[in-house]
Amino acid sequence: MKKIPVAILGATGTVGQKFVILLENHPYFYIHELVASPRSAGSRYIDICRWKQNGPVPENVKNMIVKTTEEDLESLVLFSGLDSSVAGSVEEHYAHEGHFVISNSKNHRMDNDVPLVIPEINHDHLDIITKQKYKGAIVTNSNCSTMFLTIAIAPIHRHIGIEAVHVTTMQAISGAGYPGVPSLDILGNVIPYIGGEEEKMETEPLKILGTVKNGKIEFADFKISAHCNRVPVYDGHTETVSLKLKEKASPEDITRLLKDFKGIPQELGLPSAPENPIVVFTERDRPQPARDVWLNNGMSTCVGRIRKCRVFDIRMVILGHNTVRGAAGASILNAETMYRKGLIQV
Amino acid sequence: MKKIPVAILGATGTVGQKFVILLENHPYFYIHELVASPRSAGSRYIDICRWKQNGPVPENVKNMIVKTTEEDLESLVLFSGLDSSVAGSVEEHYAHEGHFVISNSKNHRMDNDVPLVIPEINHDHLDIITKQKYKGAIVTNSNCSTMFLTIAIAPIHRHIGIEAVHVTTMQAISGAGYPGVPSLDILGNVIPYIGGEEEKMETEPLKILGTVKNGKIEFADFKISAHCNRVPVYDGHTETVSLKLKEKASPEDITRLLKDFKGIPQELGLPSAPENPIVVFTERDRPQPARDVWLNNGMSTCVGRIRKCRVFDIRMVILGHNTVRGAAGASILNAETMYRKGLIQV
Amino acid sequence: MKKIPVAILGATGTVGQKFVILLENHPYFYIHELVASPRSAGSRYIDICRWKQNGPVPENVKNMIVKTTEEDLESLVLFSGLDSSVAGSVEEHYAHEGHFVISNSKNHRMDNDVPLVIPEINHDHLDIITKQKYKGAIVTNSNCSTMFLTIAIAPIHRHIGIEAVHVTTMQAISGAGYPGVPSLDILGNVIPYIGGEEEKMETEPLKILGTVKNGKIEFADFKISAHCNRVPVYDGHTETVSLKLKEKASPEDITRLLKDFKGIPQELGLPSAPENPIVVFTERDRPQPARDVWLNNGMSTCVGRIRKCRVFDIRMVILGHNTVRGAAGASILNAETMYRKGLIQV
Amino acid sequence: MKKIPVAILGATGTVGQKFVILLENHPYFYIHELVASPRSAGSRYIDICRWKQNGPVPENVKNMIVKTTEEDLESLVLFSGLDSSVAGSVEEHYAHEGHFVISNSKNHRMDNDVPLVIPEINHDHLDIITKQKYKGAIVTNSNCSTMFLTIAIAPIHRHIGIEAVHVTTMQAISGAGYPGVPSLDILGNVIPYIGGEEEKMETEPLKILGTVKNGKIEFADFKISAHCNRVPVYDGHTETVSLKLKEKASPEDITRLLKDFKGIPQELGLPSAPENPIVVFTERDRPQPARDVWLNNGMSTCVGRIRKCRVFDIRMVILGHNTVRGAAGASILNAETMYRKGLIQV
Repeated sequence: MKKIPVAILGATGTVGQKFVILLENHPYFYIHELVASPRSAGSRYIDICRWKQNGPVPENVKNMIVKTTEEDLESLVLFSGLDSSVAGSVEEHYAHEGHFVISNSKNHRMDNDVPLVIPEINHDHLDIITKQKYKGAIVTNSNCSTMFLTIAIAPIHRHIGIEAVHVTTMQAISGAGYPGVPSLDILGNVIPYIGGEEEKMETEPLKILGTVKNGKIEFADFKISAHCNRVPVYDGHTETVSLKLKEKASPEDITRLLKDFKGIPQELGLPSAPENPIVVFTERDRPQPARDVWLNNGMSTCVGRIRKCRVFDIRMVILGHNTVRGAAGASILNAETMYRKGLIQV
Repeated sequence: MKKIPVAILGATGTVGQKFVILLENHPYFYIHELVASPRSAGSRYIDICRWKQNGPVPENVKNMIVKTTEEDLESLVLFSGLDSSVAGSVEEHYAHEGHFVISNSKNHRMDNDVPLVIPEINHDHLDIITKQKYKGAIVTNSNCSTMFLTIAIAPIHRHIGIEAVHVTTMQAISGAGYPGVPSLDILGNVIPYIGGEEEKMETEPLKILGTVKNGKIEFADFKISAHCNRVPVYDGHTETVSLKLKEKASPEDITRLLKDFKGIPQELGLPSAPENPIVVFTERDRPQPARDVWLNNGMSTCVGRIRKCRVFDIRMVILGHNTVRGAAGASILNAETMYRKGLIQV
Repeated sequence: MKKIPVAILGATGTVGQKFVILLENHPYFYIHELVASPRSAGSRYIDICRWKQNGPVPENVKNMIVKTTEEDLESLVLFSGLDSSVAGSVEEHYAHEGHFVISNSKNHRMDNDVPLVIPEINHDHLDIITKQKYKGAIVTNSNCSTMFLTIAIAPIHRHIGIEAVHVTTMQAISGAGYPGVPSLDILGNVIPYIGGEEEKMETEPLKILGTVKNGKIEFADFKISAHCNRVPVYDGHTETVSLKLKEKASPEDITRLLKDFKGIPQELGLPSAPENPIVVFTERDRPQPARDVWLNNGMSTCVGRIRKCRVFDIRMVILGHNTVRGAAGASILNAETMYRKGLIQV
Repeated sequence: MKKIPVAILGATGTVGQKFVILLENHPYFYIHELVASPRSAGSRYIDICRWKQNGPVPENVKNMIVKTTEEDLESLVLFSGLDSSVAGSVEEHYAHEGHFVISNSKNHRMDNDVPLVIPEINHDHLDIITKQKYKGAIVTNSNCSTMFLTIAIAPIHRHIGIEAVHVTTMQAISGAGYPGVPSLDILGNVIPYIGGEEEKMETEPLKILGTVKNGKIEFADFKISAHCNRVPVYDGHTETVSLKLKEKASPEDITRLLKDFKGIPQELGLPSAPENPIVVFTERDRPQPARDVWLNNGMSTCVGRIRKCRVFDIRMVILGHNTVRGAAGASILNAETMYRKGLIQV
């Protein structure tokens, strides 16, 4: 099989670096172009990237000359880890030029004609890209905290029905990029606020869990309340969740639903798909970010403490890897799904 | 005024050490006896106490010979920071002997005839001690996480009415005593479970907010769901709270209620009473444990981010000092209230 | 006594904020002007300062309109916490204009005619300001890590003589200002490098411990080797030190010398002077930054583990508060000394 | 090849757990017996082990019934991660019974007839086991901090000669076992003392770098001074080192020596041998524990900042994985060396 050339937009940022790592030996894609802001023009990747991953900069990109977002690109597929301050227009531009922009940025997530996709849940939303005004297309994945919540409640929403959700997050510092959170603000501390995060968690799941009718996405119809906090954890967002259900269900019912949950990535055996999208823990004090976040290469959502709620019906603890399944890994899984569904063709 | 001699039960533990600090120059009480487990018998305090407070062991207790829980005590008032494994019977014994046991331990909190008191809220519950089977009496304060939640919702419960509460805590390591939480378990981590903590938060507030009828406490009638987490913070429990109210109220209404909240400790000007039991923050990212926990010597409850909830009616962030207002300081405020109400007489 | 009006240069930075705190109720000085970079011109202090201290912005400066480093100033004494990228020329300018610039910045520390002062050690160096080319004067204090090392070895240098010093530091994040060290770089980590720090530690002590001869400072004549590391500690630099001495001395001799060390700030009872410049710990695992850094309001240098060295003669552990005694507090103590010596006259 | 059955002494402790992980799929050895203290007798491993490793307990040991140190064992080779309070007599007993005890415990390290081995450096010391009084043998590896220091200076000692060493360590919490360091003692703190650690670092390297003459080990003849500190890092001990050399050598000379260093594990291609025992970093702020500790599966010693020393001749920063190369991995490398040298025969 001939591999597809891809570009990484925002290649020097923290999400961009994760793209570099996760695409280093990908069976479908290879990194053909690295793209950063105009001030990086003409430099080698290794010279301008403040590399923050474990291990050295991979050989395949080390000496690549970085292109800028003002240049034409050759790759059909563009993975975007651009900062939201520039992602909006840059992504539109390249989509107009005929590229498939697989974006982790927030800018176009809630656009009417842009699918917001977690392939285990709503791969059928991808079909609406044919209605887009672009010669190419824009496809997005959700915010990181949204990702784990939505995966964990998707099988419950589908089989039992959800009326309301209370969620409180404890989010890792790596979610804020680099330099991101100053150590003076977070060492031994909790910051009970993350700009824009609660709004995303309260709306994005409803689009993902929505249904396509007449080429349009009808949002799911329940309410979410989110409190978002930053805690001194390196990788991994932990979430406590209480659910009001449409029908009765025991913790055992919920446990079974979550354990059995699979989707098209698992059916197709996509390269980045975890064997189980959800792993259920039975120990009373798990999952924990420092111990469990790398489960299945950071692509599974961990769920624990499934139990009755004294106010609503069911509560649980959720954990996911914010920069893998919650960001770069999610985009790559989207692209893999599109490729295998024939939506990306060279 | 002649000061009242007091003893500290469990004087070498972390709560006991806080009692030592807070009673060093107290206007009503002076430390007359230090009491620890039988294996400490006959030792000087400084020789057997693994002192973990800032600054040195105070001069007034340094060379005091520690008594044991098997000995008779001379002090009328006993502050108890005993471990719950022994507090039950030891406290009963001393109450039978005629002592006033002001306890921070959980063992007797839910006893029918034992008041569970936050004096700003329910100092009238203290009157039921006359019905106790003891020659003396046992008076308790709540669990630390319960304390801040109950203070913050008390004025709302009283003036507007509460139907349900969702709360998630992020609790400091000092709440687990010493040696307490191993660093291998909490450095860069979140532990989504604290043994027994959720049950306390879901029941204790209902007793505190209850009413005395015919010498008995009728519990408040609403539901609480608590998720309790340990986070790598030294002092200060942070809580995110969502409230379902009986009547409509705006964030501004709630803010005003909380700011105006005062109780008998403020009216009487008790030595340990903060000028304001509740301090409301308007900055969008406060309160934070590392910055705000020592406000008013750790005796105020900090509240921030009072805003509408998308599922319930109102939500907010709460912070309090778990070993001061949430433990030793609470017991001392109880004793001060009893003293000024004439319930403790030499 | 009429208080002297002072200005704070770099008033919005972390050192500037410490000046604001420490000068709030100072018996000699009052804050008359706050000065920041030109882009802050015309704003109220509270509106442009990202306040990072415990407690709120003090009332006396809250609404003060911030001046810029391009404006003339009215205050005779200027405390400078300016960033080193601008301190050089700005401080010179104001000194030429007749101000006494008491600086914490590194730029002029090693100038021939600028005294580098720790008043307990070399207050006599202050006299060389009369030789300066300025109408006013520039007086500096040392780098924070230098400060504690120099204080701890000064009495040994004076009474016994030092031939060589090996020092390794473990420095707090607050030493890097705000936003300073990104949390992604330091959480659960050690960074074995701090730009420019080792050079300062290897040269500044030699100037401070030098002697004035014919109006010039002759440097002390021994060698220092410094390894500087950043560790995840909030406040307080810890240093391990091994000393090669000119004459034999036992740990007990050294302990006595350090305990007895006093200087002109103690003799004059200066407002910011700690009763003991050096506090010696006898516990085998102290001093520790999280427990001991605030000793004597952060103005004492803590020394512990004074013992024989297997390679050199004596070794010990040193701790000091980097933003108090190591920065703003040091400048203020310099100004107090100058004032009481009659070098600053209104 | 038939694999050799081995037992793990102290199998439930933190070092024991690392043995379990590292031996799960070992080409020479398989875990035949797990041994713990008498109070664990008759239990399944999974039921009594507080497992603290990433990922679940391996299938091959999960249901194994744990034996006790009072029982006879069938395995020829015993890996010992016993606590030093019991290791002394237990190891002797099994050695007398004919077992090869490959120990990570400190008890017998300095015994005259027990080799203290880092196979890259002194595999020839293994030959003295024939002189032991035991039917079997005891072989030890060094303390973790000693390990990295000794590896890093070994090629310098051999080719240039060392006269004196100053070393300061910043050691990870995992070095203290579980529960180990209480979080209240280390969060945001430095503890400038680790019991017994400095003595080990000051003596063990001299034995390892010694030479066998007439069946006895003559210690190397230079002096080491060690300051040992605990810092809030999970895995990885960082050390700053200054060396006084016998002959002149430039940083470039030293760099070359360290890069070229290889030993018998590399020549024989032992399963646990890193390709390079020492990896030299050229970035000015590396190695760092949080980023570099897992290099070559935690079996390489990382060295950086090789530069001139102002007091001695050369200084550098050293980092190693304390529970892998510094403990269980070191013992396994010793056993692999013995096996391939024919010292262990079934």
